[in-house]
Amino acid sequence: MNMSASRGVPGTRERLVVIGGDAAGMSAASQARRLKSAEDLEIVAFERGHFTSFSACGIPYWVGGDVPDRDQLIARTAEEHRARDIDLRMRTEVVEIDVAGGRVRARAVDSGDEYWTSYDKLVIATGARPIRPDMPGFDAPGVHGVQTLDDGQALIDTLTRTRGRRAVVVGAGYIGVEMAEALINRGYEVTVVNRGSEPMSTLDPDMGRLVHEAMEGLGITMVDAAEVTKILTGEDGRVRAVATEDTEYPADVVVLGIGVRPETTLAKAAGLPLGDHGGLLTDLAMRVRGHENIWAGGDCVEVLDLVSGRERHIALGTHANKHGQVIGTNAAGGYATFPGVVGTAVSKVCDLEIARTGLREKDAHRAGLQYVTATIESTSRAGYYPDASAMTVKMLAERRTGRLLGVQIVGREGAGKRVDIAAVALTAGMTVEQMTSLDLGYAPPFSPVWDPVLVAARKAAKAVNAGTS
Amino acid sequence: MNMSASRGVPGTRERLVVIGGDAAGMSAASQARRLKSAEDLEIVAFERGHFTSFSACGIPYWVGGDVPDRDQLIARTAEEHRARDIDLRMRTEVVEIDVAGGRVRARAVDSGDEYWTSYDKLVIATGARPIRPDMPGFDAPGVHGVQTLDDGQALIDTLTRTRGRRAVVVGAGYIGVEMAEALINRGYEVTVVNRGSEPMSTLDPDMGRLVHEAMEGLGITMVDAAEVTKILTGEDGRVRAVATEDTEYPADVVVLGIGVRPETTLAKAAGLPLGDHGGLLTDLAMRVRGHENIWAGGDCVEVLDLVSGRERHIALGTHANKHGQVIGTNAAGGYATFPGVVGTAVSKVCDLEIARTGLREKDAHRAGLQYVTATIESTSRAGYYPDASAMTVKMLAERRTGRLLGVQIVGREGAGKRVDIAAVALTAGMTVEQMTSLDLGYAPPFSPVWDPVLVAARKAAKAVNAGTS
Repeated sequence: MNMSASRGVPGTRERLVVIGGDAAGMSAASQARRLKSAEDLEIVAFERGHFTSFSACGIPYWVGGDVPDRDQLIARTAEEHRARDIDLRMRTEVVEIDVAGGRVRARAVDSGDEYWTSYDKLVIATGARPIRPDMPGFDAPGVHGVQTLDDGQALIDTLTRTRGRRAVVVGAGYIGVEMAEALINRGYEVTVVNRGSEPMSTLDPDMGRLVHEAMEGLGITMVDAAEVTKILTGEDGRVRAVATEDTEYPADVVVLGIGVRPETTLAKAAGLPLGDHGGLLTDLAMRVRGHENIWAGGDCVEVLDLVSGRERHIALGTHANKHGQVIGTNAAGGYATFPGVVGTAVSKVCDLEIARTGLREKDAHRAGLQYVTATIESTSRAGYYPDASAMTVKMLAERRTGRLLGVQIVGREGAGKRVDIAAVALTAGMTVEQMTSLDLGYAPPFSPVWDPVLVAARKAAKAVNAGTS
Repeated sequence: MNMSASRGVPGTRERLVVIGGDAAGMSAASQARRLKSAEDLEIVAFERGHFTSFSACGIPYWVGGDVPDRDQLIARTAEEHRARDIDLRMRTEVVEIDVAGGRVRARAVDSGDEYWTSYDKLVIATGARPIRPDMPGFDAPGVHGVQTLDDGQALIDTLTRTRGRRAVVVGAGYIGVEMAEALINRGYEVTVVNRGSEPMSTLDPDMGRLVHEAMEGLGITMVDAAEVTKILTGEDGRVRAVATEDTEYPADVVVLGIGVRPETTLAKAAGLPLGDHGGLLTDLAMRVRGHENIWAGGDCVEVLDLVSGRERHIALGTHANKHGQVIGTNAAGGYATFPGVVGTAVSKVCDLEIARTGLREKDAHRAGLQYVTATIESTSRAGYYPDASAMTVKMLAERRTGRLLGVQIVGREGAGKRVDIAAVALTAGMTVEQMTSLDLGYAPPFSPVWDPVLVAARKAAKAVNAGTS
């Protein structure tokens, strides 16, 4: 089949096929539809799961009970997409991309029926898959990932049915710490087993230490530097404990928060270009490199890190949505780009807020950058104002140039979103000296007269100057 | 007297004189002391009031009861300054600057005794004075400004003594709305009388309207477009009501929040350069223009607005502190600059948060800039997350270039400090199109997947594109 004759010819209806019905895919489909009517552009989207356009990031809050209803996590239902002339085929998996032929092979998950369908333009938004160690017991009942709404429902069913009291979370990244909160809210005794020296390996260990201490303060048992070797099951086949080399941690339920990898099996089989982290490589218009009519976005791609100049893999809904916007615009014949990321992330565990952007010390080292660091303690509001809460801000700046390289924040209410100041400054390539005069919002209920980020910038600028004098 | 022979000669002790013992002046003195010991630099500071280094911005919260103790508002006492070898002379007013002679004339406020003292380097940090209309009754007992700690104490004394129930606030800028909150917290029925068409004239009227509505929702009576003509007093001579052309508003206490002007009487008499707004004009090192050895900072100077390229007057503690740092560094022989402001401010009235940065529509118009606007409604957290609160964001972007010109935000918890994103973007000269890809912190408890500022940027970018196509 050769569809090339129909590509881009005025008056000819083009066909856009989208693989993956979540954030990136459906944002792309929706944006393309906004720009082109069904007369000009047919849009077919395939989703292998039961849900579309859902907030995976919201699952911990649903499990924890803050969000009472699963449907609140669904930004747009399949019916709503269809009402906007998007031919969304649920429970239908794409199992092959024929790039030369301009077609994909789809399979109905329930019936197994297969068919080929052609595309003029293709969007790959296959997302990420959770890492599941190939070790005994990881597939036992009571062991749960939290990637999809189905996963979330299964975990909630387990929690409701078993009425256990001990939970072990494997992994202490964002998902791990958020699930720790969810399980605490469910009344569980929570142990977090983590192979890093401290939780939150997206922070430097000195900042991760603060998270460790704060989580222990919340009553969570923190086990660092521990490699899980297997999951032990009872006579009923259900999970009974998590074993490390040294110890066993009894568990009525186990939640895996070990991280994810780009889901690029299809893309790889089709010969599309993958990067060092296993994600698809695109240009700035989110076009798969070397392929004029194929775009990719969301958790299945690598993105340019604007600070280090390298590609990295970040699975985060906010990027997926931006990718979708850019792809939809371009696929509809417009023009948009996604310039890259600076690596901003924010999370919380109960009232503890954790945020980071840019490079950690080891990232800077890896990128060949010499740097200075500055760590300060300050408060979220004027010290005399009620509920001023302590926060620690760590800042990295390049030696000699003073360019901001990264910021990490650990604190309470009002700490986390301050990372945005640094995120914008990183994007703009500011130096820490320039940051010291930033005109940030000040009033006693909102900030000390020197915002904590400015205090860190002053200290970092001093370190830069000391290093170059 | 000619001290010039001693200026800058190695081994000779220099003399730095500071006029004004609050944020800018004492920050300058402290920073100079950090860099130069008492052997090399003598520092003499004059303060005519009873207090030094206090947070004027904190007064509404002290009056309202959130800050129980006045002393909490004092960042550093006179004794603490003196312990650091700063010769701080309290209750001593400088009444003349003799620029040619390199000396100032000081007067002890209580005794009236006067003396001249010489300087090698001079810092003018005389602050601002509140506007007090020259109309009948404005000096009656029960009418209060809130500029100094003495003012705050007098108001608290009145509130405690009179046990009134009706308060009128004249003016609906930051001080006016913050005092409205303070008086509500004190159990008063509050009326805010404001001559602008809406409260918060630092916002565009359409955003001010939201503040009006929200404040009425808090039980505050809002009287806009009303010029106060006089303050009526009772038989006891105390305030009884505030009169406008049309109406009288009964009042047991009146608080003035009409604004301030730079206090530059001394500087003007000394022939130092003043700008259109009555503030001292400095270079970027905060040196008074044309005067190598005189610096000025804080509420008595005009600052460069980086967005419009014009000078403006902003009385705000955060700028005063930055000026002080820069002045102290330079006065001690170092090098630092204050590049200017973008006009960021944030405030709250009970749970209503109000923020702005950059240009309003009328500022843009005045500066000859053509612009587009975008106003959006969004939420502080993911819509499904508990306590997600609504906020309105208005964004101005320059026509054709798409450069960000200003942002205004009105909302509840989590709205105000988002203005910092725009403040940094303004400083960096970003376009709204560039802002659409900013990598801001996202997790459901902190933000929707598209941060409200990004939603506004998308809409503004669309308007820019529509205007240029």
